[in-house]
Amino acid sequence: MSISNQNDRDHLHHVVIIGGGFGGLYAAQKLGKAPVKVTLIDRRNFHLFQPLLYQVATGSLSPADIASPLRSVLAKNKNTSVVMGEVVDIDAKAQVVKLKNNLAINYDSLIVATGVSHHYFGNDQWSEQAPGLKTIEDAINMRRRILSAFEAAEKTHDSQFKESLMNFVVIGGGPTGVELAGTLAELAHRTLSDEFTNIDTRKARIILLEGANRVLPPYHEDLSEAAKQSLEKLGVEVRTSAMVTNIENHVVTFKCGEEVEQINAQTILWAAGVKASAMGKVLGDRVGAELDRVGRVIVQPDMSIANHPNIYVIGDLANYPHQGERPLPGTAAVAMQQGEYMAHLIEAKVKQREADKFYYQDFGSLAVIGRHEAVADFKFLRLKGWLAWFIWTFVHIYYLIEFDNKLVVMIQWGWNYFTHRRSARLITGRYLQVLEEMEGIKAGGLAVETREPAQVV
Amino acid sequence: MSISNQNDRDHLHHVVIIGGGFGGLYAAQKLGKAPVKVTLIDRRNFHLFQPLLYQVATGSLSPADIASPLRSVLAKNKNTSVVMGEVVDIDAKAQVVKLKNNLAINYDSLIVATGVSHHYFGNDQWSEQAPGLKTIEDAINMRRRILSAFEAAEKTHDSQFKESLMNFVVIGGGPTGVELAGTLAELAHRTLSDEFTNIDTRKARIILLEGANRVLPPYHEDLSEAAKQSLEKLGVEVRTSAMVTNIENHVVTFKCGEEVEQINAQTILWAAGVKASAMGKVLGDRVGAELDRVGRVIVQPDMSIANHPNIYVIGDLANYPHQGERPLPGTAAVAMQQGEYMAHLIEAKVKQREADKFYYQDFGSLAVIGRHEAVADFKFLRLKGWLAWFIWTFVHIYYLIEFDNKLVVMIQWGWNYFTHRRSARLITGRYLQVLEEMEGIKAGGLAVETREPAQVV
Repeated sequence: MSISNQNDRDHLHHVVIIGGGFGGLYAAQKLGKAPVKVTLIDRRNFHLFQPLLYQVATGSLSPADIASPLRSVLAKNKNTSVVMGEVVDIDAKAQVVKLKNNLAINYDSLIVATGVSHHYFGNDQWSEQAPGLKTIEDAINMRRRILSAFEAAEKTHDSQFKESLMNFVVIGGGPTGVELAGTLAELAHRTLSDEFTNIDTRKARIILLEGANRVLPPYHEDLSEAAKQSLEKLGVEVRTSAMVTNIENHVVTFKCGEEVEQINAQTILWAAGVKASAMGKVLGDRVGAELDRVGRVIVQPDMSIANHPNIYVIGDLANYPHQGERPLPGTAAVAMQQGEYMAHLIEAKVKQREADKFYYQDFGSLAVIGRHEAVADFKFLRLKGWLAWFIWTFVHIYYLIEFDNKLVVMIQWGWNYFTHRRSARLITGRYLQVLEEMEGIKAGGLAVETREPAQVV
Repeated sequence: MSISNQNDRDHLHHVVIIGGGFGGLYAAQKLGKAPVKVTLIDRRNFHLFQPLLYQVATGSLSPADIASPLRSVLAKNKNTSVVMGEVVDIDAKAQVVKLKNNLAINYDSLIVATGVSHHYFGNDQWSEQAPGLKTIEDAINMRRRILSAFEAAEKTHDSQFKESLMNFVVIGGGPTGVELAGTLAELAHRTLSDEFTNIDTRKARIILLEGANRVLPPYHEDLSEAAKQSLEKLGVEVRTSAMVTNIENHVVTFKCGEEVEQINAQTILWAAGVKASAMGKVLGDRVGAELDRVGRVIVQPDMSIANHPNIYVIGDLANYPHQGERPLPGTAAVAMQQGEYMAHLIEAKVKQREADKFYYQDFGSLAVIGRHEAVADFKFLRLKGWLAWFIWTFVHIYYLIEFDNKLVVMIQWGWNYFTHRRSARLITGRYLQVLEEMEGIKAGGLAVETREPAQVV
């Protein structure tokens, strides 16, 4: 870049975006041709297609299949810089975003789109035994635990311990919980069914616990019922109105009405609650933004914070009482539309034009349960089964960011469809540690072959 | 499995294989129809196609693209069990292999194929700053360091520190070192060239240090020269007769003859030496096997250990003075042939037939440097350039274990070929830690934008 260009660039309105998820990335992409300078800050160097993260956790897809390097996606936008780092503070008066290690970036407009993290409703100690699913590392961790449980079950002779290893509890019956439970059932009952010697993986129990009286609570009741039936057909035990009260020593305790029940399970997966990411608190403490009870930022009709017309919050982190109704759900569709709206709004501001307030166009909701099993709630039309499954598949491939990701995901899904195989079933990271921790619980109870060796020729 | 089958199975000759690499896996596959019972033990739940590991380290392929779950690969072999665990001892008298957590497995024949690990020639403290490349975790670690160095360089204003971040030193000019250096050059000079704002990645220096007087020492001299020229065309600085004497504080010190030189580099990759894996010592201490100076086990013409006709060592862990000459190289081709030979030998023994001793059929060697650049040494024929590259590509896809891996690798390579993109460029695991450690070295020297913010409309 020549010095004169640098100067030109310096005089442009500077839009700083924190977070490269659906909200932040779509805003950045749409601002690529606007007469502004854009800086996208993220702790990660890639955009993650979170709706398919459960497929990484269950060994169907690789992390890179659903992740796209931010620099690569934005390479054509010559007005855009990408900074990898962690924002620790915002100074709204000086219009400066501060990162770790003494890096500061000035902004004219700031878009905060850092999303949400797991919420254990005040029981953070559960997170160790019941990990959640928000990042690639979370997915790798879940995958390691799920696959290690089968490996440990294959090795033990202690039948009670074996049972605990073959129990998989998914907590939370929203889309992520439903998709996780369905895929886990397919993994155990089909993919792995002829691969072990000492266990029958078809006997693995997949138990889905949901606090409300039906799964997929935001969907129409008919679809909740259809989803439940599909799950049960796959072999998932669906327990609704089940409030988890404790997770300790690999035992899940929950209440169904007055009844208290317990399940021994080495693998417990959390898909229940979300709370605002750390930037919510920064905006509350340092900028004076109003937060809701899970820490999300309450925004104006143009997604800005009250009294800060140049600081916007979009995506899952925003609490936007759409049309005066309840907050919009934390979905990719909402975040994408808000990201595109941001680009539209800022371009209008820079050109000193009027802009409309944000209006969410609800195209409906989709959730997949398994092979040929999905539900689609298009408001005017409700679908279930094969057609919903086909639409789900098409939509997810369509929205994947990079062309090679679309191709690779299609091939992996085709391969899985025809062979029932899942080829990303790798136990990586702390690979032996998890297996040995599980085994250590019952060390001494492992299988010992004591047969007399045959005579060697 | 019914009880009578279990009894039948118990009377079969039991072959225990430790290690699911090329040697162990090929032995297990070939024994699938033999009248024996097979148990394959590995610390990992997958076979790893190590020759392509450098492509994971440089963001071209995903781990699962070059890894195949052992259970999936061996699912059709009904006489075969897979055990995930770590062998800690061998009792040759009782014919028992002992694993962690009190698991013991009897054997009639034992095949040890656990390969090799990095060797720092007595300087193990170098491993922290100059990681090697043997496992998926090693590759993810290298990928994280390589990509984090560019991210940190983008952020710093300290020109000396920036230079150190843009220097990449590869130590060792064997196939792995050559392939790593060539791919790193393509990554820096092509893939990333239009993705950064503050750095020109084409100015990154890739320096390959080799102790011998030419790269690819086992190849014919003409091919070493061709490989050097190809590397230099890609922008790699090739330094031969360069003996590394120290790695400390991100400085590599090496001697060229009498001259002592130093290079500042935040990223230093080790591809120089290998030593026997831990099972070599177990065989030496507990079974009395003879070891060579890097701990490999010296074997008889039938790959057995002297005085232990039912314990065999194959693959990289074996030192086999083929035809009385120097030991066979530690390549996939040697391990595959030894694995197949094992199956042949054990089947002959069980059927009380004579078996030949092992004979290695040398089909030649292949190493790739970059796009259209490879060398092939078929002894009777030496190739370089486009044709060698094409053969290399074909051979590697052909030998990949699973069909979906072949397809996905073809697509990723095709995508990379036509677009120069590498889409598995994810910084995962301790993602911010590495970046912040690198930045921490020069905290305070990072870029601070102090421009006056423009007036917000």
